[in-house]
Amino acid sequence: MFVLNPVLAADTVDIATWDLSLLRLMKDSNYPWLILVPARPDVSAMHQLNSADAAILMVEIRRASELLQDLYSPRQINVAALSNVVSQLHVHVIARFETDAAWPGPVWGAVPRQDYGERQLQAAIDSLRRHCIGTEPYIKDRDVR
Amino acid sequence: MFVLNPVLAADTVDIATWDLSLLRLMKDSNYPWLILVPARPDVSAMHQLNSADAAILMVEIRRASELLQDLYSPRQINVAALSNVVSQLHVHVIARFETDAAWPGPVWGAVPRQDYGERQLQAAIDSLRRHCIGTEPYIKDRDVR
Repeated sequence: MFVLNPVLAADTVDIATWDLSLLRLMKDSNYPWLILVPARPDVSAMHQLNSADAAILMVEIRRASELLQDLYSPRQINVAALSNVVSQLHVHVIARFETDAAWPGPVWGAVPRQDYGERQLQAAIDSLRRHCIGTEPYIKDRDVR
Repeated sequence: MFVLNPVLAADTVDIATWDLSLLRLMKDSNYPWLILVPARPDVSAMHQLNSADAAILMVEIRRASELLQDLYSPRQINVAALSNVVSQLHVHVIARFETDAAWPGPVWGAVPRQDYGERQLQAAIDSLRRHCIGTEPYIKDRDVR
């Protein structure tokens, strides 16, 4: 049975429940930072998912990326599945700016976590949730490329 | 037209050409470290691929992960698409060990790059290429989970 890892639960807040994953916001106001946690037990890396779940995970990674792109217009989106410390598979999807605290390095360990103020956190949650509902699907095909 | 970014070209060596991506080995013997570069022009993040290419990329990420898992039996596989410095989309697939130079942190910026010796590099290339040919497909379904 899948149970959200307690460290991940404490570090993040719920935004939405998608087909495969829980979508959560990291409580670090340094960066707009989403976490996708596939609701599957005993999985710590992408290649341990079955093929169907892996395909959905890619759709959800792209959907979370589009969500951040649309809301925050960042310079870049970073995507990473590390799970060295918390072994439950979780995928970071992070909006990055040339002005952010860690640019151009990765965010992990760069600067101490910065709490959101209470109102600021609620505003971020509301805006992410509203955007999740308002504009599905996020995956726009770009086959013309 | 797709051209491999010259920084990526200099930092890596060719292992294989897959359906979507070039599979390359990072010239850093601190970690068994593969790079997938989707052969598409003007793409710097996963959500900028079209859906069909994104689906193939997930298959190739899992295939590269299985390759490292089978050859090196690491504790964990790290997957990341950052592209903050080199904007051409490239996906890191890295075998991680509790004994490695950066564990449990991410590898970027942790310790200076360590060159392979010439023989050691050729042995790694040969072994990766042989394993690519010998055991396709790498994606084993785990639907029983």
